[in-house]
Amino acid sequence: MTVARAVETLLPDLQIIYYGDLARTPYGNKSPETIIEYAINNTEFLLDHGAQAIIIACNSASSVASEILRQKFDIPIFEVITPAVEQAVAATSSGNIGVIGTRATIRSEIYDKKIKQKAPELRVFSIACPLLVPLVEEGWIDTRETKMILRKYLAPLKQKQIDTLVLGCTHYPLLKDLIQHRVGKKRIRLIDSSIEVALTLQTYLNENPDFCKTLQYGGANTYFVSDITKAAIITAEKIFGRHIDLIKV
Amino acid sequence: MTVARAVETLLPDLQIIYYGDLARTPYGNKSPETIIEYAINNTEFLLDHGAQAIIIACNSASSVASEILRQKFDIPIFEVITPAVEQAVAATSSGNIGVIGTRATIRSEIYDKKIKQKAPELRVFSIACPLLVPLVEEGWIDTRETKMILRKYLAPLKQKQIDTLVLGCTHYPLLKDLIQHRVGKKRIRLIDSSIEVALTLQTYLNENPDFCKTLQYGGANTYFVSDITKAAIITAEKIFGRHIDLIKV
Repeated sequence: MTVARAVETLLPDLQIIYYGDLARTPYGNKSPETIIEYAINNTEFLLDHGAQAIIIACNSASSVASEILRQKFDIPIFEVITPAVEQAVAATSSGNIGVIGTRATIRSEIYDKKIKQKAPELRVFSIACPLLVPLVEEGWIDTRETKMILRKYLAPLKQKQIDTLVLGCTHYPLLKDLIQHRVGKKRIRLIDSSIEVALTLQTYLNENPDFCKTLQYGGANTYFVSDITKAAIITAEKIFGRHIDLIKV
Repeated sequence: MTVARAVETLLPDLQIIYYGDLARTPYGNKSPETIIEYAINNTEFLLDHGAQAIIIACNSASSVASEILRQKFDIPIFEVITPAVEQAVAATSSGNIGVIGTRATIRSEIYDKKIKQKAPELRVFSIACPLLVPLVEEGWIDTRETKMILRKYLAPLKQKQIDTLVLGCTHYPLLKDLIQHRVGKKRIRLIDSSIEVALTLQTYLNENPDFCKTLQYGGANTYFVSDITKAAIITAEKIFGRHIDLIKV
């Protein structure tokens, strides 16, 4: 939802077809095989509903499934890792980049590999923070317990002299203020993969006018989910700043 | 797994066919419709693999799906709620019973209804503790953060003069010591639904010798799961006290 919100803000003319697999989330502590299977299902669903380009709006799925989706489906497929990597590499001065994410994302070492492909001299310090997703989904954004858990997760980064921290999970933008406060106000630049992928999509559209001509503009955005709960409705309102009609499929 | 372990300990001659839907857990924050759909899938899977009786080893699924499963499938179906209710009603002296569980279980009000059906004069105080499942699955059993979150969840029970507390989620037995410590050592009796359902199954088998004659005895237990992760393997070892061969299906 943070990605859909970023795309909507930056590119309001586009028609967004959102699919949130809430019946099977969280993905971040599942095996790569299972995440790949679900990512293929979800892409097929979006194509059946008219999608002409796909954003894999989840770091865990982007980490393990994006190459397979690109091989399997012949449309532009964007993932949230590469844009964040490019931004982090451009932003760092100290050469020390931190990455936080789910267990699946961190275990894939995708940020480490992609950052070092671009700039082998950089140092990457990655930490899996598996409890942040359930805390965000519970709406425990500003509680003492969440602050304490964040402190525990982020402590190992304190000694690493990082100046850039990648929020490698699309849930984490909701914790941005808390994380910024914890790592030191202004001292460390946070990279929000949701915003970066929207900027990458914008650049792609600017560079590919022929593709843009094929797009349907002006239709209403639709928000499909595989499960509806009160918590999901509240989270959607918090992210979009308005009520969102979630459609259960 | 805590239920399978309790059944194995109490009734070692039975052949257990376990199915853990790890690809789609946790169930406790999903809608009733989704939980029912998954519970039907899972029951069909177990029947296909030769199950002659079913234990719904999850309070969330027991809460919302047990009646539907009993209508749909013509074999003995046990759920984890009723045995815990019977034990709690028998155990309380003060008449004040606490229940902790997932959001789905607590929202169903199943414990409240079933306890009051048996003894309308009793008072039931229920609290949803949705973060305990992810904390247990992370293996954060004895951390400061888990203690703090437990304190927050259990605080409203402090004033209620309960003498009995139902652990209304099959993950919670792993937190039994911590919960017992928090609510007051010995002062409050904890009811473990995993153990209670195993005792109910034992009673059923004693009272139904004809059914027992139809059972297959002595086969090896099998542990099917819909996803395998390192965390699942570690949790299985912790619960069973030995390595468990999880079979991905």
